[in-house]
Amino acid sequence: MKKQNISVIGLGYVGLPVSIAFDEAKYNVVGFDLNKNRINELNSNIDKTGEIKKERLINNKINFTSRKKDIKKADIHIVTVPTPIDEFKNPDFQCIISASEILGKIIKKGDIIVYESTVYPGATEEVAIPILERFSRMKINNGFSVGYSPERINPADNKHNFENIKKVVSASNPNTLKVIEKLYGDVVKAGIHSAPSIKVAEAAKVIENTQRDLNIALMNELVKIFNQMDINTNDVLEAASTKWNFLNFRPGLVGGHCIGIDPYYLIHKSQQVGIVPDLLLSARKINDGMSSYFAMKILNILNKNKIGTTNSKILILGITFKEDCPDIRNSKVVDLINELKSFRAIVDAYDPIANATDIKDEFGINILDDPTKNNYDVVVIAVAHKIFSNLGGKKIRTWCKPNGILMDLKNTISKHEADYTL
Amino acid sequence: MKKQNISVIGLGYVGLPVSIAFDEAKYNVVGFDLNKNRINELNSNIDKTGEIKKERLINNKINFTSRKKDIKKADIHIVTVPTPIDEFKNPDFQCIISASEILGKIIKKGDIIVYESTVYPGATEEVAIPILERFSRMKINNGFSVGYSPERINPADNKHNFENIKKVVSASNPNTLKVIEKLYGDVVKAGIHSAPSIKVAEAAKVIENTQRDLNIALMNELVKIFNQMDINTNDVLEAASTKWNFLNFRPGLVGGHCIGIDPYYLIHKSQQVGIVPDLLLSARKINDGMSSYFAMKILNILNKNKIGTTNSKILILGITFKEDCPDIRNSKVVDLINELKSFRAIVDAYDPIANATDIKDEFGINILDDPTKNNYDVVVIAVAHKIFSNLGGKKIRTWCKPNGILMDLKNTISKHEADYTL
Repeated sequence: MKKQNISVIGLGYVGLPVSIAFDEAKYNVVGFDLNKNRINELNSNIDKTGEIKKERLINNKINFTSRKKDIKKADIHIVTVPTPIDEFKNPDFQCIISASEILGKIIKKGDIIVYESTVYPGATEEVAIPILERFSRMKINNGFSVGYSPERINPADNKHNFENIKKVVSASNPNTLKVIEKLYGDVVKAGIHSAPSIKVAEAAKVIENTQRDLNIALMNELVKIFNQMDINTNDVLEAASTKWNFLNFRPGLVGGHCIGIDPYYLIHKSQQVGIVPDLLLSARKINDGMSSYFAMKILNILNKNKIGTTNSKILILGITFKEDCPDIRNSKVVDLINELKSFRAIVDAYDPIANATDIKDEFGINILDDPTKNNYDVVVIAVAHKIFSNLGGKKIRTWCKPNGILMDLKNTISKHEADYTL
Repeated sequence: MKKQNISVIGLGYVGLPVSIAFDEAKYNVVGFDLNKNRINELNSNIDKTGEIKKERLINNKINFTSRKKDIKKADIHIVTVPTPIDEFKNPDFQCIISASEILGKIIKKGDIIVYESTVYPGATEEVAIPILERFSRMKINNGFSVGYSPERINPADNKHNFENIKKVVSASNPNTLKVIEKLYGDVVKAGIHSAPSIKVAEAAKVIENTQRDLNIALMNELVKIFNQMDINTNDVLEAASTKWNFLNFRPGLVGGHCIGIDPYYLIHKSQQVGIVPDLLLSARKINDGMSSYFAMKILNILNKNKIGTTNSKILILGITFKEDCPDIRNSKVVDLINELKSFRAIVDAYDPIANATDIKDEFGINILDDPTKNNYDVVVIAVAHKIFSNLGGKKIRTWCKPNGILMDLKNTISKHEADYTL
């Protein structure tokens, strides 16, 4: 059987690895993205997300393009666009809508559109398919058909990647399901799990990150409780982790484009069907409040050390949303920095992993090339980049003034090297 | 070094295995319990909890006793009494207080008292030690000393037992810690983890079950959401479980003397130190509300099948708080039965694992010897005893009237054999 032509719509953390995998399995792949910078970079074998090694970019035959007409010849279209939230924390389907419009205009009879973006259960059928029908003037399962196969990319994780994470697939009819099973089965070595319906597959995806959000929220709630009792939460977690079934989550800021976002999709749908999801809402409230909590903690410690907050000098180490990952989307460290600045502290940030230009553009924050020695009242490790644990507490402390305070919010350095840990 | 004399105060799920382990390691052990029935049974080599095999009961040299003076010759006293909650969901320290009074009156200089009961951080120092000091007229770390080593017994779990679960220990001073480390190290083959303080060890224990409670609450919240959308939660969990880091919890009733109780200890202390623990409270609210939710579901299905609730005949399978465990304490199935009865349904219960006499005594519920065939409008599997999965859906359905409904709340039988699963 001839291998199908594939188009991948959206070439971010998800779409690029998908494109590369199908290309390497000898499919004809068109990689589409509206962002021309991204296309130019990919055509120059540069992947800013750091997910794909240069060698694989050099060796592929993918047609990276921003031209809609290039998608036309594909039979299978995989949509890997972002699904963020708006300022009211409601789902923002703009990219799904836009991708579906583009596809609706060019698809032909027999084409299959597979969505990989995280949504709430029902969204593919309620949001995407009507747009495809309208713009294609065809009917679902008659002219074209649809699949849903949630992405499970874990940014900056070398161990778990597109090829070796089992993939859930689902489709609008049994024949399409067979095609999609075979298609992904060809590239995902870990195998395929066929869900009985699209909405089951959508639900399975959205609860994965919801579960992580909840478990991190528990750790953050414990930090708040134990802090009031002068109990070190790390000590508690170390002891609890010796039980075989204790789940080793850690407190901290929850940012990024998945864990801090996906639960809002489920919350949104849940409210529509008449359930106020107390637990999901509580978890979001706690995790979204942690930048404020940490800011208060830092200012409180400054004051205990008889340093006023105004003009105090604070160095924040790490600004990305996740350790060892350049992604800065929805980073809560930025909220922490802004909160500290609102108390008129002078805040510097240092992050050798993050792209300084992106941060300047998106948040107006300058990233230091190298922190100055003996310069800070407080140095705060906010993201556990390996580069910081490798530097070690001794080196990091040289950036503190004499009697300056070293706070480690992420268990990054040895606990005895820090003046404050969670 | 001569092996110490040990007394174990409280011979339930926790105290009996502890007594047996120390006896088998050649310590002199006095096993004390105020409940004379339990003492008589143990002296007749009967363990109603099913944790200890008859052979080990026959072969031990433990002095099982209800006489306080028998405790006197022990140097180390291990307190394994229950820590339930009162009707306001506040900690009920009555057993800890009573055990501490008994011990306070008989301990001598140099004795060590180790608490194993689950409490909130601070409770040993705030509740137990003052009583020991008052009744012994000695001072902590001067006359006597104290340890805390949380029990991690998992009832009805053959794989994880006292000897092969790593044990957390802590003490009121470093010398006592050394003694306790050596003591437990002698019997716990999995090894010892020394916590830096008693309150860290207390915190480590109470968060373990709090974490489980929260994760089950998430599953229950998902059941409520997905049920409104006609999504089968089991299908969703099956798909989500194919991800390497998805945590395989299941929805259901949360009863028993641990998971449904321990979080209230942490909640209680948390409120005292000024933190309203939203997340912990939400989890408790959801889990405590599940019997009502399931009752409504059952009555709703009766009505959908045009069977009125009054005089409808319902058979509940399983009444213990946990599968394959005879323990009926704080079983939420009882709440479910009572709720159904309040709608004037006729409810029978069948549970070959539970002790029928205990259930009659404690809840006034009759347990059937054997259900009658063709007799029930609804049969509900409420506890996933192996005996039920072994019977299978076909056999269980014989108890339904023709067109009767078989509901499986616990994924006990094959999903196609049930008319309703979560």
